[in-house]
Amino acid sequence: MTTDGFRVLDVKSLTEYIKATPSLASKLGDELDNLEIKEVGDGNLNFVYIIISTSGSLVIKQAVPYIRLIGESWPMTKERSYFEATALKRQHSLSPNHVPEIYHFDRTMSLIGMRYIEPPHIILRKGLIVGVEYPLLAEHMAEFMANTLFFTSLLHLTTTQHKSAVAEFCANVELCRLTEQVVFSDPYKISEFNRWTSPYLDSDAESIRNDKILKLEVAELKSKFCEKAQALIHGDLHTSSVMVTKESTQVIDPEFAFYGPMGFDIGAFIGNLFLSYFAQDGHSNNANNRKTYKAWIMDTVANTWNLFYKKFTSLWDIHKDGPGEAYLHEIYKDMELWSLVKQKFMLDLFHDSLGFAAAKMIRRIVGVAHVEDFESINDVVKRADCERRALDFAKILIKKRRNFNNITDVISTVE
Amino acid sequence: MTTDGFRVLDVKSLTEYIKATPSLASKLGDELDNLEIKEVGDGNLNFVYIIISTSGSLVIKQAVPYIRLIGESWPMTKERSYFEATALKRQHSLSPNHVPEIYHFDRTMSLIGMRYIEPPHIILRKGLIVGVEYPLLAEHMAEFMANTLFFTSLLHLTTTQHKSAVAEFCANVELCRLTEQVVFSDPYKISEFNRWTSPYLDSDAESIRNDKILKLEVAELKSKFCEKAQALIHGDLHTSSVMVTKESTQVIDPEFAFYGPMGFDIGAFIGNLFLSYFAQDGHSNNANNRKTYKAWIMDTVANTWNLFYKKFTSLWDIHKDGPGEAYLHEIYKDMELWSLVKQKFMLDLFHDSLGFAAAKMIRRIVGVAHVEDFESINDVVKRADCERRALDFAKILIKKRRNFNNITDVISTVE
Repeated sequence: MTTDGFRVLDVKSLTEYIKATPSLASKLGDELDNLEIKEVGDGNLNFVYIIISTSGSLVIKQAVPYIRLIGESWPMTKERSYFEATALKRQHSLSPNHVPEIYHFDRTMSLIGMRYIEPPHIILRKGLIVGVEYPLLAEHMAEFMANTLFFTSLLHLTTTQHKSAVAEFCANVELCRLTEQVVFSDPYKISEFNRWTSPYLDSDAESIRNDKILKLEVAELKSKFCEKAQALIHGDLHTSSVMVTKESTQVIDPEFAFYGPMGFDIGAFIGNLFLSYFAQDGHSNNANNRKTYKAWIMDTVANTWNLFYKKFTSLWDIHKDGPGEAYLHEIYKDMELWSLVKQKFMLDLFHDSLGFAAAKMIRRIVGVAHVEDFESINDVVKRADCERRALDFAKILIKKRRNFNNITDVISTVE
Repeated sequence: MTTDGFRVLDVKSLTEYIKATPSLASKLGDELDNLEIKEVGDGNLNFVYIIISTSGSLVIKQAVPYIRLIGESWPMTKERSYFEATALKRQHSLSPNHVPEIYHFDRTMSLIGMRYIEPPHIILRKGLIVGVEYPLLAEHMAEFMANTLFFTSLLHLTTTQHKSAVAEFCANVELCRLTEQVVFSDPYKISEFNRWTSPYLDSDAESIRNDKILKLEVAELKSKFCEKAQALIHGDLHTSSVMVTKESTQVIDPEFAFYGPMGFDIGAFIGNLFLSYFAQDGHSNNANNRKTYKAWIMDTVANTWNLFYKKFTSLWDIHKDGPGEAYLHEIYKDMELWSLVKQKFMLDLFHDSLGFAAAKMIRRIVGVAHVEDFESINDVVKRADCERRALDFAKILIKKRRNFNNITDVISTVE
């Protein structure tokens, strides 16, 4: 694969590449002779290397022109690397405490050099599976989402800036199509890629394929995903796209980024917390029934939304005279109207978020890509039971989302 | 103005230009020595020449880098000509009977050569003012809108085609901003450009600026206009963008074209028919009370929507197995569900259309650009009375649009 100057690196050629690239070599203190290099994958799509020298460290992430999880039979443009790098830079500038810094980007090689998010950071999903509480998680995620979504929307950008950014990210279409397929289409039809905990969930999967009202709602959400260019969204904000310690929260892997509906990010995160919640009974044992932990997860859901609400509307207040052209201050300055405007916007966003959360939950149980939260439950009967309760809740959430006025009501329904 | 190869043509240089351009000269049968050339303007923005030879004819439309109506003090990119040409070609290919053919496009000169829409074609608005019935108008407009909107939406395009087209038209941002300003912003605040039939409508204009619920609804419509990239819309589909005879309907001037909400086109057309309706009492006299004509206008509104509904959903049925990725047939093939899908889509589109219709009505009465329907009523008291009734109806329409389930209910409210 060298047709266009692109070649897949291995440990040896990676070292040569770093030696020839000052912006990377300098991060290792230019001590390049005894590098510790470890390939860690990142799950589904790319090659990821951790590189440590005696005086520094970094991560190299290289996209290959197919989906690593599936193999070369499912091609996928390596240009996703360009959009990941572009989104990472933008998100880092908007939320520097919660997005790693990029050191280097090579478009020809589809290669990103970035900060190594060092131990004890782990993937959030893994922390949730073992039952670790992260007291700052909701606060940090609310901050990441409020900053990245507000400042890339028409609430802060001019139409000119906004349309130019929308146009640029339209080219990340292959990744959008992947989402359309695996989130909004495949789970609702027979597909060779779908799987579920069979035979226990066979009739549940079938009832999803036959649920008219559900599919009607999914169509509306899919249209919003495809057509509503509201803000630069991460596009894949589940709990494996977040690395955590008790003190730190880092959002990674925005290769699915594009201008889409804000609710898709909020929904992805909250939906994956719900999945974790429903998986807890599969991880409970005599020593720990996970009751307290389940309550913490629900608190985290509530705090994420409520803090997001607070931070987002507060950014809006602060920047009400800013360049954003959606709600001109001169028109909306009346105090009562200004309050109504925010309430209406946030309620619409809330309903979008709940709908997308549910869609993301369903696809993780009956679609192609599952989550470790459930997969790691060895007792299949128990696992199927957890999954079924998650599915049933997701169906209610998607159909009745417009009846919920606040997150507390949603959580009462879960419990 | 020759910095970039662009120069404004006059009658003399226009003749030279045609002689040097075979695709134009040939349409005049290459008989270029005794051309009849007439500058007709097109209202607000551009220079338009009709050129007739002994054996042929054509129209030349040239954009200048400002808004002709206002002057050089309001600059406006002449690149709009590129988007107009691109949209005209696409719309002509989709609705050849209702969109003139393009013969020539010169991007450097912002110049379009196209079919001369010959007499007895006149601008529809002028026909409506004198009270001419066009028996095929609703049928033709329904066909134009159904074809151009359906085939450029995700109901027929793949995501890849759709996002690529969305990206291209994002660059027509200056024209989008103009619409945002004059339709969705200026009427709702003090603006030097606003005017109305003063002093009669002073308090009406003020009450619009102070109507909280109205402004809340306008904000939602503006967001849809800015963010909902649903289909290639004409962007300015009022009754002066349509030329008619009793047998023929030709849609022109799509320089505001971009990927936006379908309802904006349907609403523009229907909203301008409503304006015509409310203006009729100002044109009635003892010889003709315009009662029959008002009924014909309302029939035309009803037929436009109902025929559009029929044609659009019929295209959708015919192409249900086509390339469109929004509603995969395999998921929605159940007869009852398929029917529900169409009903829901069309009801949402109906409500969008009513909202945009109302917004377009309001801006024509208290904003910068007025319509001849009212302007030609010389008795100002009478004119203000007509305008007030139109305004009051528009306010109801925008606020209560979600309560209307069909066009008959809307028309009952008008009457």
